[in-house]
Amino acid sequence: MIVVMSSQATAEQIEQAVERLESMGFGVHRSTGENHTILGAIGKPREEDRTVMEMMPGVERAVLVSQPFKLVSREFKKENSVIEVGGHIRIGEDKLAVIAGPCAVEDEESLIQVAIEAKKAGASMLRGGAFKPRTSPYSFQGLEKEGLEILARAREISGLPVVTEVLDQYSVELVASYADVLQIGARNMQNFRLLREVGRVDKPVLLKRGMSATMEEWLMAAEYILSEGNHRVILCERGIRTFETYTRNTLDLSAVPVIKHLSHLPVIVDPSHGTGNWRWVPAMSKAAVAAGADGLMLEVHPAPQQALSDGAQSLTPDKFARLMTELGSVAESVGRGL
Amino acid sequence: MIVVMSSQATAEQIEQAVERLESMGFGVHRSTGENHTILGAIGKPREEDRTVMEMMPGVERAVLVSQPFKLVSREFKKENSVIEVGGHIRIGEDKLAVIAGPCAVEDEESLIQVAIEAKKAGASMLRGGAFKPRTSPYSFQGLEKEGLEILARAREISGLPVVTEVLDQYSVELVASYADVLQIGARNMQNFRLLREVGRVDKPVLLKRGMSATMEEWLMAAEYILSEGNHRVILCERGIRTFETYTRNTLDLSAVPVIKHLSHLPVIVDPSHGTGNWRWVPAMSKAAVAAGADGLMLEVHPAPQQALSDGAQSLTPDKFARLMTELGSVAESVGRGL
Amino acid sequence: MIVVMSSQATAEQIEQAVERLESMGFGVHRSTGENHTILGAIGKPREEDRTVMEMMPGVERAVLVSQPFKLVSREFKKENSVIEVGGHIRIGEDKLAVIAGPCAVEDEESLIQVAIEAKKAGASMLRGGAFKPRTSPYSFQGLEKEGLEILARAREISGLPVVTEVLDQYSVELVASYADVLQIGARNMQNFRLLREVGRVDKPVLLKRGMSATMEEWLMAAEYILSEGNHRVILCERGIRTFETYTRNTLDLSAVPVIKHLSHLPVIVDPSHGTGNWRWVPAMSKAAVAAGADGLMLEVHPAPQQALSDGAQSLTPDKFARLMTELGSVAESVGRGL
Amino acid sequence: MIVVMSSQATAEQIEQAVERLESMGFGVHRSTGENHTILGAIGKPREEDRTVMEMMPGVERAVLVSQPFKLVSREFKKENSVIEVGGHIRIGEDKLAVIAGPCAVEDEESLIQVAIEAKKAGASMLRGGAFKPRTSPYSFQGLEKEGLEILARAREISGLPVVTEVLDQYSVELVASYADVLQIGARNMQNFRLLREVGRVDKPVLLKRGMSATMEEWLMAAEYILSEGNHRVILCERGIRTFETYTRNTLDLSAVPVIKHLSHLPVIVDPSHGTGNWRWVPAMSKAAVAAGADGLMLEVHPAPQQALSDGAQSLTPDKFARLMTELGSVAESVGRGL
Repeated sequence: MIVVMSSQATAEQIEQAVERLESMGFGVHRSTGENHTILGAIGKPREEDRTVMEMMPGVERAVLVSQPFKLVSREFKKENSVIEVGGHIRIGEDKLAVIAGPCAVEDEESLIQVAIEAKKAGASMLRGGAFKPRTSPYSFQGLEKEGLEILARAREISGLPVVTEVLDQYSVELVASYADVLQIGARNMQNFRLLREVGRVDKPVLLKRGMSATMEEWLMAAEYILSEGNHRVILCERGIRTFETYTRNTLDLSAVPVIKHLSHLPVIVDPSHGTGNWRWVPAMSKAAVAAGADGLMLEVHPAPQQALSDGAQSLTPDKFARLMTELGSVAESVGRGL
Repeated sequence: MIVVMSSQATAEQIEQAVERLESMGFGVHRSTGENHTILGAIGKPREEDRTVMEMMPGVERAVLVSQPFKLVSREFKKENSVIEVGGHIRIGEDKLAVIAGPCAVEDEESLIQVAIEAKKAGASMLRGGAFKPRTSPYSFQGLEKEGLEILARAREISGLPVVTEVLDQYSVELVASYADVLQIGARNMQNFRLLREVGRVDKPVLLKRGMSATMEEWLMAAEYILSEGNHRVILCERGIRTFETYTRNTLDLSAVPVIKHLSHLPVIVDPSHGTGNWRWVPAMSKAAVAAGADGLMLEVHPAPQQALSDGAQSLTPDKFARLMTELGSVAESVGRGL
Repeated sequence: MIVVMSSQATAEQIEQAVERLESMGFGVHRSTGENHTILGAIGKPREEDRTVMEMMPGVERAVLVSQPFKLVSREFKKENSVIEVGGHIRIGEDKLAVIAGPCAVEDEESLIQVAIEAKKAGASMLRGGAFKPRTSPYSFQGLEKEGLEILARAREISGLPVVTEVLDQYSVELVASYADVLQIGARNMQNFRLLREVGRVDKPVLLKRGMSATMEEWLMAAEYILSEGNHRVILCERGIRTFETYTRNTLDLSAVPVIKHLSHLPVIVDPSHGTGNWRWVPAMSKAAVAAGADGLMLEVHPAPQQALSDGAQSLTPDKFARLMTELGSVAESVGRGL
Repeated sequence: MIVVMSSQATAEQIEQAVERLESMGFGVHRSTGENHTILGAIGKPREEDRTVMEMMPGVERAVLVSQPFKLVSREFKKENSVIEVGGHIRIGEDKLAVIAGPCAVEDEESLIQVAIEAKKAGASMLRGGAFKPRTSPYSFQGLEKEGLEILARAREISGLPVVTEVLDQYSVELVASYADVLQIGARNMQNFRLLREVGRVDKPVLLKRGMSATMEEWLMAAEYILSEGNHRVILCERGIRTFETYTRNTLDLSAVPVIKHLSHLPVIVDPSHGTGNWRWVPAMSKAAVAAGADGLMLEVHPAPQQALSDGAQSLTPDKFARLMTELGSVAESVGRGL
């Protein structure tokens, strides 16, 4: 931690700041510049320590020098983490993971149809929400337990492992008994109790980036899960909120190279939520793969116009199959495969 | 709902759109413009219906004309809602509510000291977190149940009703058995299960605006609570996330007049979180009162430099007392009182 | 400047970084922490120097410790700057400046009517655009020179000094020959040639904050003007762009206390552009005054429904007069006057 | 235009709104819904007309249905525009345009070196700023006329056409006499006088998206240029400002498919400014190509650590050459070539 004293700080204030740092157990290096005295705190300071120092009289600001995340960092683990799902899928290696399916599980027949067609087109996993967080209390909220059962049957028939969202810490056990991967939605990225709970479960977790979360906050959310013992976390970029209105969110693909630089965890991309419109999904899927993503999460619905949720951003199975063919070439061009 | 057909829509596509609207039970008015045909759907369309129409071939876009919120709207209830707390406090009338206290409950002695000093300076309620959502898993997470007990003793001694945060739906009962007002934090504004749960409790709810929530989403979150039967909701503006870095958040005071126009619910302002720095708190507190806020939520800590959480934005009891004096004049200038 | 070496930096890389700093003329203090070596550069480093260091192998990041602005800073000048306009108005003292008038000058009769009514209600200056920057090439672009002449006649009749926008460096002389204060619009906040040019003129400059400008960038824009010799700059907060859509911009009132802390220049607020809707203007005007603004800029139009530009955010003269009465009390409550 | 009357509008207010629309020359269709009366205005309404209607008593809101841009739209011209540069380059066809070079022209020798190496690696054009807009008045501002002459000599030797920025309308003639393509920088995207002036010149224009510009505003800025007669406009996405701090801007690649849907103009991408860090440039370059961009603009500097401007985001010639090889495969995978 660096503590920058104000250019008007008195000698006494500087002394007090040094003593405070020492009382917290840090070694202190002092640099006297032309305008400012700067104190370097040697040790392992945390955000709390920084705040304490910023409150001291004569202190202009305090800056943490080390990144706040540990277990998720490249410094902690140099090589890429590879997450195994369902025994045969490995996320984070050359072969890309493509997770396809409807936003919400609506009925057994249509889910199984999508699962079969997605599998045929090359998808590696099936998605579908049984519990749906909705902006309006008057909207469809998911089939809940029945949805989980339908997902399990679709897995049986199609052979695709299943990803589904868990909304709170008390449903983790229930959802984990059906799902192959537990999804934490964007709105729950900082639901710290839920993060802790999925950190204690023996299932991989797909952690979506919050709508207004910085990459650092996102990695800190993953840190919660790893700190409880579960190291099988897949990060999923799904767009951030900006002033632009032509797209529902702004898909931040730069998150892919940045996260891969900072962390050993795999990163996938959800262009369906990231754009909010099926028209932009193919272009952004290819872009995500070219940027180095380890996979994609795509909404596919047999009849998007009838979808109970997010129809506008869903591909039909036909469009999905066509996209998969195109994605194959792009993946190959960057040394990956589908 | 207005459905705008593309300028290239065929007669057949227009016919299909009309039929789809009718099949959903709407009356349809058709306007043929120079470039576009426009369909007006008469009835009570919802977001789902809008999405369905936007998927139809030949449809350019569909716009909902009515606001999506009902129970929280001024159209539903013309006069201001007044929320009673602790038997003697009424939020939403001329007298402003000032909720003061530390970010987190740290120990009994200091909380009681703050409560007594805050009361003396004119505060009407006491705040303090027993459960703390923290960005890092390695930070202090609150005293939990012990914190609630300390809050209860501070209330007994000071006579101030107590506001404290509830983090998930399963703790609602516990927290409600101690608190006078249940606070929903910014990160939980769209934790819909929690919203529903506090909607079933007989305690007022203080609902903070999410860091990246539009005012419409904020009102929809309140709608969740009212739709379960609890109409005692107090909205709290606490800053939104922008690109500016001198302040921790950008306090959006325009939310005060806008929300008062759209809704009958009272609105208070939290300039401590809204700015992240005690230096800006007095100016922004006065601004909030002048803008028409029904109250303030202020962080007060006996020794901010020792605070375990958010010390940088806390006022000392002395500074708080001075601010209260100044606020009295501003309140009076807009026809309110402290 | 602080240079943080990577935790993987080699001894040789650290040596190279030290040598580079010394070759740029800085003294160097070295702190060796548990994970990082930190170098403090003693001297007057600039943004360029920081970038150079961030490119060095083994450097994790480099942070400038001093603020990049000089002449506009409180460190340079402790006491508030007071800007004289038209011989009798002083901006930055107890008496607030209220600048009123239409968005665009449309015709002589209506401008003079507004000027007289605004003066009667207590306005201290008249605003009106002769050159209008418009998003669409097909919209009204202002009366240009004729508009300036009309402004001059309105000043003669009303006695109110005139504020009007200058769009490029080659019109500065022309506009300065008519106007009492030269306005730099939000879109031109970083038109550095224009800033330099108004820096060479003997007229006060009203510098609006850019729609997506940080406070630091805004102060740096003012620094351009002061660095050319013109120290009479008035800053004007007018809202920043965020994701919120109920308001046209998000008026950032925290800019008032922050700028007053960082700089000696006066700050006024434009709630008309800041909200985009006359309904929110009274509340936000009062809030701005309570926050400590040195004045307001308000759009007033005799018939907003007929306005050629920005009618939706204009007050009628009646509403303006009523607001002025209310503002008087708020100003008084914070020790100011109208 | 759709005019939505308030649910509380009186019959008289509805009548007045209808009359107002008719007096502006529009045909009017009336729909009476359960809560709202809706008026459809038939004709060619503009933003001004919308504002007028929103001011009428009893009107809740008015929505323009047609897009505000005309000449740049796909409706105006169905097939892609192809922009010829320097006689032999065609932007907007299968072959991608790669514009490479330093941020600023610093000296003849190093520019010529970069030009030769960039050409060898496959670049199609040379970039370099002679006039530099800089945040600080104390930073290097470009070599101006001398810089233009150096660019001309580098073109002669390398054979690469030259792209360089023009800062104001009065330098257009000068810059146009040297450059092959006139660049409008992000800060000038809404410098409407400059846009008009480059609209009257017989040179292609590269128009960068403003830091906080919506895609609609960006297209409206292009509309200014086309409306003066110059239809040779290349759009360039370069990142928007968001809350994220790991990247300098957030590169919005979804702009590529959206703009290609809305407009016939070619779109290229600048990942150097878009990310602010050379580390993320290769990944984002590949992503841009995969998303369908018609080209790239990349900063290349022989010694980024010595660069007078933006060194941190510049590639060395070696890294650029390596990237070009990789880009070739990605381009091919989406049916394009370098």
